[in-house]
Amino acid sequence: MIDNKFVKLMKRPSGFPSKDTWSHDNEQVKAVKDGEILIKNLYVSLDPAMRGWLNETRSYIPPVKIGEVMRAGTIGEVIESKNSKFKKGDILSGWGGVQQYSISDGKGYFKVNPTQIPLQTYIGTLGMPGMTAYFGILEVGKIKEGDTVLVSAAAGAVGSIVGQIAKIKGCKVIGIAGGKEKCDYVIKELGFDGCIDYKNESVKRGIKRECPDGIDVYFDNVGGEILDSALVFLRMGARIVICGAISQYNEMSAKGPDNYLSLLVNRATMKGMVVFDYANKYPLATKEMTQWIIDGSLKSKEDIHDGIENFYEIFKKLFNGEKKGKLILKL
Amino acid sequence: MIDNKFVKLMKRPSGFPSKDTWSHDNEQVKAVKDGEILIKNLYVSLDPAMRGWLNETRSYIPPVKIGEVMRAGTIGEVIESKNSKFKKGDILSGWGGVQQYSISDGKGYFKVNPTQIPLQTYIGTLGMPGMTAYFGILEVGKIKEGDTVLVSAAAGAVGSIVGQIAKIKGCKVIGIAGGKEKCDYVIKELGFDGCIDYKNESVKRGIKRECPDGIDVYFDNVGGEILDSALVFLRMGARIVICGAISQYNEMSAKGPDNYLSLLVNRATMKGMVVFDYANKYPLATKEMTQWIIDGSLKSKEDIHDGIENFYEIFKKLFNGEKKGKLILKL
Repeated sequence: MIDNKFVKLMKRPSGFPSKDTWSHDNEQVKAVKDGEILIKNLYVSLDPAMRGWLNETRSYIPPVKIGEVMRAGTIGEVIESKNSKFKKGDILSGWGGVQQYSISDGKGYFKVNPTQIPLQTYIGTLGMPGMTAYFGILEVGKIKEGDTVLVSAAAGAVGSIVGQIAKIKGCKVIGIAGGKEKCDYVIKELGFDGCIDYKNESVKRGIKRECPDGIDVYFDNVGGEILDSALVFLRMGARIVICGAISQYNEMSAKGPDNYLSLLVNRATMKGMVVFDYANKYPLATKEMTQWIIDGSLKSKEDIHDGIENFYEIFKKLFNGEKKGKLILKL
Repeated sequence: MIDNKFVKLMKRPSGFPSKDTWSHDNEQVKAVKDGEILIKNLYVSLDPAMRGWLNETRSYIPPVKIGEVMRAGTIGEVIESKNSKFKKGDILSGWGGVQQYSISDGKGYFKVNPTQIPLQTYIGTLGMPGMTAYFGILEVGKIKEGDTVLVSAAAGAVGSIVGQIAKIKGCKVIGIAGGKEKCDYVIKELGFDGCIDYKNESVKRGIKRECPDGIDVYFDNVGGEILDSALVFLRMGARIVICGAISQYNEMSAKGPDNYLSLLVNRATMKGMVVFDYANKYPLATKEMTQWIIDGSLKSKEDIHDGIENFYEIFKKLFNGEKKGKLILKL
C-alpha cells in the first residue's frame, strides 16, 4: 500500500489566491490496470500560468476543476507499468500534477534521457518554459541577426531562455528585471547586452538608453505598464510576442496597452502564443537546446524547494519577485 | 492672374480641433516653372487621418507644419503644364491639399480615367480609403472564404468597402454602425449579412447574436470599447487589422484594449497597417476594384459638400457620426 499526498483545488480565487484556495489531502494509490503506469513524481513545475488555470473563464486549456488535483508539469519515474510503451525505471515528463504519485494511460507523457542533462532541467529549459521561449522567440518573434530584442521578466524561467536564444542567433538583447541582483545575473551570467531594473528606474528611460534605435522584437511576459512602455519604442515592422501577463494575472480586471496605436504607426504585429500548439516540434527543439546546454551557450538555472507541504509558500514566489530561475517543487 | 483660396494650419489642437485651428487665406498663383504643372483642384478628400496629421508627435508621415496648406488628397485637372509627363486637361489624383489650385513637379500625382468611373470615386473607393480597405482586408486580414468578418465604422469610407470586398470573397460580414439608418444602409444597400447599432444596443450582445461562432477577422477603424468588445469573441488564429481609432483621435490620452490577452488565448494577431506601404500595388487594386464597380458588386457612396469656405463645418462631420459614405469637399 502506497500513500499519495496531493494538493487539490478547493475554490476559485479572485485576485491573488489565498492559502485556502487549495487543501492538502492523501489517499492510497489505486491498483494499476492494464494499459496504465504508476509514476513516482520527483519534481513539480511551478509556473505563473497556473494562476490562469484557476479561473473559470474560457482559456487555452480547461480550468482545473474544484476538487481536482492541482494541474502541474512533472518529472517522474515509472515504478510499475502495465503499458507496453513504458517500463519500470523510465523517467517521464508529463502532467502529473501536484502529488507524489500519478496513475496514467501514458498519454501526454514522454521519456527523457537523464544521463546528459540534469533531471530538473526537463521541466525548465527543456520543459514548458524552454519550449515557450524557443517557439515564441523563433516562430512568433521571427528574430533575425542584428535585431534588437527586449525581454521582460528576463531573469525568469521563460525570459532567461528567450534572451539567451536571441544572443545565440546574433541579436542585441536587453532584459527587464526587478533589482540589481537579477540585472547583474542577466548581464553577467546569461550574457545579455543590458538590463533595465524596473524597480529602480523608469522603464521608458531605460529602453531609450539601452535601445537608442528602437526595438525589433519585444517578448512580453508581464503586460501592464512595461508592455505600454515597450510599445513607444517599436521600430518599423516590429513584432510583439504576447506570452503572458504576470502583472495582470491576479488583477480583478486587466489593463490594456494604451499605446497600442504604435502598432499602426510602425506597421507592427502583436501576436499571442500558447506553447502547446508547437507540441509536434518539441523533439526538434529539445535536440537543439540540449546541444546548446552541453556546449555551454545556454545556461539553465533552477530555484528548487523541497516538500509538497510547502506548496503554497513556494507558489507565492512566482508572483512576489523572489524566485531566481525556474521555480521547482522537489518531492 | 488667378487667385488661390486655401486653408492653412494655424496651431496644433489638443482634443477636438476648434475652428481657429485653421485659417482661410488667399494669394495669387505663381508662375509655372519648367517641370511643373498647375492643377485646378476639383474635389478634396476629407479623412479621419487628417486629425493625426495635426499632432506634432512622430507618426507614419510628418505632421502638417504650422502655416502650411492643410494636407489632403485631391482630384484635379491640369490647366497648365511644363512637365512632359502631363498635359492640359489630364485629370490627376494626388496630394493637392485644401486649396483651389496647386503647383507641383508631378511627384505623387497619377492620371485617372474619368470615362468609366465618376471623378469623385477616385478619392473614395479608388482612392486612399479604398486602397486602405483593399490591402487591409486582403493582405493584413488575410480573409478566406467562409470567414466571419466584423467591421467597425461599417457605413464609412473604409469600412463600407472592407465589408463589400469580404462579401465578394465569400465571407460572412457583420458591420458595426451608429443608428438605424446607417445599419439599414449597410445591410440593404451594401449587402452585409448583419449590422450592430452601437448607439442602440450593447456591442457585445450584438456580436454574440450576429457572430455566434466568433470572429475570424476584425477590421478596426475605431478603437476604444468596440475594439475591446471584439477581442472577447475572437476565434482561434483570428486577425485584427488596426487601421485607425477614430474614437481616440481627439482624446488627450488613448485608451488601450483591456481584453488584449484574448490574443494569447486565441493565438490571435493584431497588426497595424498604413496604406502607403502598398503604393506600388495601387494600380493592380485599382484595376480589380474598377471591375467590381462596373459589374455592380462594389458600391461607392460619397457625401459631397460644396465650398472651401465651409471646410471646418464639413470636417466636423468626420467625427460627429453625421457623414454617410466618403466625405468630400467639392471646390
